[in-house]
Amino acid sequence: MKNVIVGQSGGPTAVINSSLLGVYKTAKDRGADKVYGMVHGIKGFLDGRVVDLSQMLKNELDMDLLKRTPSSFLGSCRYKLPEIKDDEKTFEKIFKSLKELDIYAFFYIGGNDSMDTIKKLSDYGEKIKSPIRFMGVPKTIDNDLAVTDHTPGYGSAAKYIATTVKEIIRDGLVYDYPVFSVVEIMGRNAGWLTAAAALAGGEDCEGVDAIYLPERVFDVDKFENDMGKLLKQGRSVVVAVSEGVKVKDGRYVCELSEHIDYTDAFGHKQLAGTARYLAGRVAKKYGVKTRAIELSSLQRCASHIMSRVDMTEAYNAGGAAVKAAFEGKSGQVITLKRVSEDPYMCITEPHDVHDIANVEKKVPSEWITADGMGVTEELVHYISPLIQAEIAPLWVDGLPRHIRLTASTKVKS
Amino acid sequence: MKNVIVGQSGGPTAVINSSLLGVYKTAKDRGADKVYGMVHGIKGFLDGRVVDLSQMLKNELDMDLLKRTPSSFLGSCRYKLPEIKDDEKTFEKIFKSLKELDIYAFFYIGGNDSMDTIKKLSDYGEKIKSPIRFMGVPKTIDNDLAVTDHTPGYGSAAKYIATTVKEIIRDGLVYDYPVFSVVEIMGRNAGWLTAAAALAGGEDCEGVDAIYLPERVFDVDKFENDMGKLLKQGRSVVVAVSEGVKVKDGRYVCELSEHIDYTDAFGHKQLAGTARYLAGRVAKKYGVKTRAIELSSLQRCASHIMSRVDMTEAYNAGGAAVKAAFEGKSGQVITLKRVSEDPYMCITEPHDVHDIANVEKKVPSEWITADGMGVTEELVHYISPLIQAEIAPLWVDGLPRHIRLTASTKVKS
Repeated sequence: MKNVIVGQSGGPTAVINSSLLGVYKTAKDRGADKVYGMVHGIKGFLDGRVVDLSQMLKNELDMDLLKRTPSSFLGSCRYKLPEIKDDEKTFEKIFKSLKELDIYAFFYIGGNDSMDTIKKLSDYGEKIKSPIRFMGVPKTIDNDLAVTDHTPGYGSAAKYIATTVKEIIRDGLVYDYPVFSVVEIMGRNAGWLTAAAALAGGEDCEGVDAIYLPERVFDVDKFENDMGKLLKQGRSVVVAVSEGVKVKDGRYVCELSEHIDYTDAFGHKQLAGTARYLAGRVAKKYGVKTRAIELSSLQRCASHIMSRVDMTEAYNAGGAAVKAAFEGKSGQVITLKRVSEDPYMCITEPHDVHDIANVEKKVPSEWITADGMGVTEELVHYISPLIQAEIAPLWVDGLPRHIRLTASTKVKS
Repeated sequence: MKNVIVGQSGGPTAVINSSLLGVYKTAKDRGADKVYGMVHGIKGFLDGRVVDLSQMLKNELDMDLLKRTPSSFLGSCRYKLPEIKDDEKTFEKIFKSLKELDIYAFFYIGGNDSMDTIKKLSDYGEKIKSPIRFMGVPKTIDNDLAVTDHTPGYGSAAKYIATTVKEIIRDGLVYDYPVFSVVEIMGRNAGWLTAAAALAGGEDCEGVDAIYLPERVFDVDKFENDMGKLLKQGRSVVVAVSEGVKVKDGRYVCELSEHIDYTDAFGHKQLAGTARYLAGRVAKKYGVKTRAIELSSLQRCASHIMSRVDMTEAYNAGGAAVKAAFEGKSGQVITLKRVSEDPYMCITEPHDVHDIANVEKKVPSEWITADGMGVTEELVHYISPLIQAEIAPLWVDGLPRHIRLTASTKVKS
């Protein structure tokens, strides 16, 4: 009897459900009896919220819809387990519940924070000599996971960003007077997503005029001058900027705004966006029409424009985690290893979770241009294979059809 | 010898180039010699900026790319001709240029402001007994044109909005704590676009919790209370709001913000968005996590997710304008007439431009629910046929391929 359990954690992506399907189908193929799902990750599991995935994925149509449904089907959480030494009770509780469900292997799909859960559970499991295997499946649009060549979720977000920026450029250049557009892209500390804006340029598109990553210190005065030079050419300008750009003293650019939007009940200042601030500076100085565009959560949930390469790799990462666990591995994360550049080929490889949990991978300095306003051809070459090929939505009545967890499918909560 | 000329004006859409193609191909089919394009509309024409479209659309691939390229291929302008009585010289100049190019018919693709150009030119043409025919081709994502059942451009924007809102809802409901999301949708005076958010709801989606159109006075206190009630249920909330909602005293909601972002060189106050303001109010009062999402220009240029019905109707409107002009009509606009509800069928019909220019059509009161927080089934039934069917981008190297006017294709400027 081999029951397995799987959870999703952290920010959702367009393909996180493909990894879920990869775990589900591979586990079933390899003889798993029950495949349980944690509702809202390890936090939901601690509250006893578990579903039987077989009851939700009843046929091939359900599974094809799951691949095309954005966000985390099982729900997500942002929850860090305590340190084992500080609170052994939480771990006892988890392992008791796992035993009750007769769990053979435990899979967790998430980013570097979520991999901390796999690390702690496998460490505790080793300590108490539990036979349960713990495997991590990588997921994050941010692409900031260590060891792996890239992360599932990144390619689809990059495809969305490049496509949208291409469309914004066509739109932005339509008038005969200059319009200054700033596109704000996710990534607090790593510029991988913002770098994807570079893919918009090509035979049929002017591309963006500048790209600012959080890996470089942002100089607002220099930015203003540089934009002035671009605007002097009398044409519209489109720049991409990471939400995470910071000035020399360490403050985020969005924190430079003279006003705050509001202070919430927890006393957190809610700041106007980076794009809005920079557009405001340029408007004030040069008197041009400006646009501030935040791609916001759209960039992580646009499953109507998924990368098929990304979707396949996400599925494979889930499947490889099951394979590794069933072959006896534990305390590892599936990584992607680029074994060939041209043609692009990537394989999966399990790697010790201790090298991955809580580690953040940034864009290497040599992939950012010397003036800090762009990325190199090498970086474009790195991203390009990840956005290739498409998977069309299942269109029903003019809209992409999804599948969701409903009250009736929540068998235990 | 039948030369024709065509221009694009006002805000771009995903399908305005399909109308351009409809004009081009139909004119060619019906024996036009040259098909000229005005670069940046009538304003560019006044500056002598004219191109020969045959030199740009060299083959069928170019034409298929044109259909799939967002924004106005020929460039656009926001320019209103003077009143004839105030400045006859401008008209003399235009007609002199038209004569030089030996123009038989003049086509202008645009919204209600742009139709003013057709009105004035045809009025002046009649006055001087010019044989040139002037025809308007409707275009606007706002769907606020009079007489016509709907406008080309609206269906694709509605499809984008409904798809994106569906994805935002899946994303917004992923955590086990409530998140309050406000999606801000275009439409200063008419709520047609915002109403399209209603299409997100269905078998596979919870739909939005409320929709606020600019046709109803917005009450911020009531909004706050209503959102409080929704949030009390402990779940995430997603609402759609028009950028144009106004409070009782006539101010836009976004003008209520205590701060302004900046004042530009022309002294125009640039306001923080409506969504941001409302999210701020809710965050402050209820202490929940909020998200303000502006669909911004993405909703008008997302040609990667066009409605095929919309594209076809846009093409047909362009073609019908040529047919009407070649049959002797002038001073008219092509309208769409819904001749059957179920199955949906729409035909084109020319209509006097004087009934259409400068007139704005709003959402009828009976299509808004009594509580002002939603739209009726009738409105959903009205929009639904317009978002049907798809046309896939031509994917090249992972991205939708476009076509653009380049320096080398500008034959006269």
